[in-house]
Amino acid sequence: MLPVLVVHGGAGHIPPERAKVSIAGVRSATRAGYAVLRRGGSAMDGVVEAVTQLENNPYYNAGCGSVLNVKGEVEMDAIVMDGKTLASGAVSAVRNVANPVQLARLVMEKTSHLCLTAEGANQFARDMGVAEVPAESLITDYARMRWRKNLQPDANPVECQMGKMGTVGAVAVDMEGNIACATSTGGMLNKMEGRVGDTACIGCGGYADNKVGAVSPTGHGEAIMKVVLSRLILFHMEQGQSAEAASDSGLAYMKSRVGGLGGVVTVDPQGRWAARFSSRQMSWAAAQKDTLHYGVAAGEHFTQSIDEPN
Amino acid sequence: MLPVLVVHGGAGHIPPERAKVSIAGVRSATRAGYAVLRRGGSAMDGVVEAVTQLENNPYYNAGCGSVLNVKGEVEMDAIVMDGKTLASGAVSAVRNVANPVQLARLVMEKTSHLCLTAEGANQFARDMGVAEVPAESLITDYARMRWRKNLQPDANPVECQMGKMGTVGAVAVDMEGNIACATSTGGMLNKMEGRVGDTACIGCGGYADNKVGAVSPTGHGEAIMKVVLSRLILFHMEQGQSAEAASDSGLAYMKSRVGGLGGVVTVDPQGRWAARFSSRQMSWAAAQKDTLHYGVAAGEHFTQSIDEPN
Repeated sequence: MLPVLVVHGGAGHIPPERAKVSIAGVRSATRAGYAVLRRGGSAMDGVVEAVTQLENNPYYNAGCGSVLNVKGEVEMDAIVMDGKTLASGAVSAVRNVANPVQLARLVMEKTSHLCLTAEGANQFARDMGVAEVPAESLITDYARMRWRKNLQPDANPVECQMGKMGTVGAVAVDMEGNIACATSTGGMLNKMEGRVGDTACIGCGGYADNKVGAVSPTGHGEAIMKVVLSRLILFHMEQGQSAEAASDSGLAYMKSRVGGLGGVVTVDPQGRWAARFSSRQMSWAAAQKDTLHYGVAAGEHFTQSIDEPN
Repeated sequence: MLPVLVVHGGAGHIPPERAKVSIAGVRSATRAGYAVLRRGGSAMDGVVEAVTQLENNPYYNAGCGSVLNVKGEVEMDAIVMDGKTLASGAVSAVRNVANPVQLARLVMEKTSHLCLTAEGANQFARDMGVAEVPAESLITDYARMRWRKNLQPDANPVECQMGKMGTVGAVAVDMEGNIACATSTGGMLNKMEGRVGDTACIGCGGYADNKVGAVSPTGHGEAIMKVVLSRLILFHMEQGQSAEAASDSGLAYMKSRVGGLGGVVTVDPQGRWAARFSSRQMSWAAAQKDTLHYGVAAGEHFTQSIDEPN
């Protein structure tokens, strides 16, 4: 069953004209991450590769294409976690970097800390020789249009957010049985300056433990935080639930207790996986035994050979 | 059994000459928070009152008296959580405010977000009319001395940290059975600029749920984050463990899995409470049925009337 990699490109209400583009990017990122695993790369290498590809793809709310905060600026959160040691790295409210997920990995590998925020995260990026990119290079016309629209007095950014392809993330188990997760996001549409969502927060925006599994979520960040969703789902798995049942339990609890919608990709140590969501759609793909699985609407589950063109 | 309030003033290796001062402040803060509960105040009012007192007390690593980052500056994290709704508010890497715990409460009450960081948190403080205090007013001679000492090439800030009175926090159940927690800290001695520890991270630096209980931790922040300690302890309680047994289980797991030491104060909905630690000491106090309980070394448990002078 190993290796396996599962990727999401955000939960929400994805309009039909955007669903095709959304699923294409997720399939491509899944292929890239799985290629890393297939040639013996680590689960961490695989999830970072997949998430990097989606950060570089302007159709997702992460890296280039991130939503804008209320001031019209991009501030990004990202996290990685290594299930062998429970080591983790995160950045919050970071600017001017193309790949926050790679910076999060550097926090894990090169510091004694788990999370660096704002200017401190950018100072660390400079110290590590990470290229600083112009703020404008991360902003798409689509993001700017939505920002302007949500500055109107009658706007509802939370509602509007659910129509946007969202946060991106991945979970993987490599050939040695090591597990990792990665998540990256531009956050909430028209958020306040300095808003930190679930993605930078371990247990909320991701968790990986070789003994239990891994989760990467997407959806309403504040709701995910209130129920510490990723760790919650893994607790259900520790109690004997399957990755799929635990994911559904966690999402159902989030909906009933705090009224939040979202989705997750989940793996267990044996390589069993799930891509589940309580939102209307979530673009997702999984690669296992050289088969690519993917879908976007509830109940959808297509398969093709991993080597077939997109 | 209600109301009840339990407070900690940090876990670590507290030298005898500082233990007396440490426990005096915690007892005083516990009395103040309990007085709020006794006159019908909410659990949230009680924990914020207790933590505010400790932030204002220069002997603790929170508010005035916070440890300094590597640049010699104070950057603070704080969190509050309301167990009725799972609402929460946090600030990370905030500067120039006397009471980060009160700002965290404003994030919860006045925004749609759960966490604001760095300059965004300070901008929000200004928008709310929170007084800006000079950076120098938060820095004690003791903090500056320790910062200088840890700039030496052979310094070990993590080890040194364990000799410092640490993070402060409180949990409470009010007369209506509502539960809350609050935690506040200056973080890790000589930390990197922008380092965010467990305190700003829901599930790690605190969690409160009316159906289960509440936890506020202290100790090695990065270890607390890796095991999502507060939520972990509450999961054990959901599985039927007592507040005391669950706290011990969580701390033992943190020690064995990631090598971290710390302590917690914990309550359950019936008002049963625990103050447990794996570090050498933790200054703690609890108020219940007009009795003040307190201690600092392992096995210590003194009691006196709540109305007796300190």
